[in-house]
Amino acid sequence: MIDMTSKSNYTKDFLNILHARKSVRHFTGKAVTRKQLEVLLKAGMAAPSGRNEQPWVFIAITERTVLDQLADDLPNAGMLYQAGGAVVVCADISLPIPEGKARLWSQDCSAATENILLAAEAMNLGAVWTAVHPYPDRQYPVRKILQLPENIVPFSVIPVGYPTGEDQPKDKFDIRKIHWGKW
Amino acid sequence: MIDMTSKSNYTKDFLNILHARKSVRHFTGKAVTRKQLEVLLKAGMAAPSGRNEQPWVFIAITERTVLDQLADDLPNAGMLYQAGGAVVVCADISLPIPEGKARLWSQDCSAATENILLAAEAMNLGAVWTAVHPYPDRQYPVRKILQLPENIVPFSVIPVGYPTGEDQPKDKFDIRKIHWGKW
Repeated sequence: MIDMTSKSNYTKDFLNILHARKSVRHFTGKAVTRKQLEVLLKAGMAAPSGRNEQPWVFIAITERTVLDQLADDLPNAGMLYQAGGAVVVCADISLPIPEGKARLWSQDCSAATENILLAAEAMNLGAVWTAVHPYPDRQYPVRKILQLPENIVPFSVIPVGYPTGEDQPKDKFDIRKIHWGKW
Repeated sequence: MIDMTSKSNYTKDFLNILHARKSVRHFTGKAVTRKQLEVLLKAGMAAPSGRNEQPWVFIAITERTVLDQLADDLPNAGMLYQAGGAVVVCADISLPIPEGKARLWSQDCSAATENILLAAEAMNLGAVWTAVHPYPDRQYPVRKILQLPENIVPFSVIPVGYPTGEDQPKDKFDIRKIHWGKW
């Protein structure tokens, strides 16, 4: 149904990677470097941000002991035992916002998280979005282990590593989810 | 600081497009095609989704009258007058979720919105995320114009079109937002 023949190779490569992104939950255990995490963080900060407020803050982790502690204490992040690193996307909820406006940090942190996942795919790394917000029982251990101040809310934990190859992208395209012009 | 010399060209091209994405608010007025919007929608549905629930629904618009109506009635989407089309990302909030779990549609719709913005950049189109959720005074006109049922919540309106070239990407990289290992 979707004809991409008129697009340049450049575009096709980009869209191929976007569609190749998958939730990688199986890692080889090989460490990732600070340099690799820096590329991911740079991608995260290139996300759009409501009113350009950029409320995001990132904890980047390569220490085995910290990864293991998070895996121990989170109900949904056991893949950290085999991951080679992690990025924790947080929000600074103390930043001032204009009167009458809503805080959009959850949307901003979501866009940053997605950019990080896509960049990992482009670098032949694997990553997976594990939700922390809005679960208090997940926020508490992350706060404690990472020693976050009160105004910093942990939003997502992204294990990063070398994929074993077990995880594959899902084809979620569903034409019934498209309405043209109006409902 | 970030050394990408060891990455393949493939990776660099992807990251270059990711970093070239900008909020495009100035369009030439040239129409976009259904085929172009379909590529964007496919990218949107390739986003990650909590518990793979895929609560997103999309309204794709090419009709001039509908674009103008939305521009008239929304406080933050005047760029629709010159846009060549639009995608409205919505959530079906009536889908069942497991007991004790949170609804993650706002995070899912954010990731889908970001994928659409990135795909537009890759296609040499321009796009911009205009927030609808959580503003009731923006949700109301979108609901009315697009005739959305009660269970469908409009999340974002994304004007899409050919950029005039006025809008440029911001460099938002800020090393102070990175903490290593812990806070």
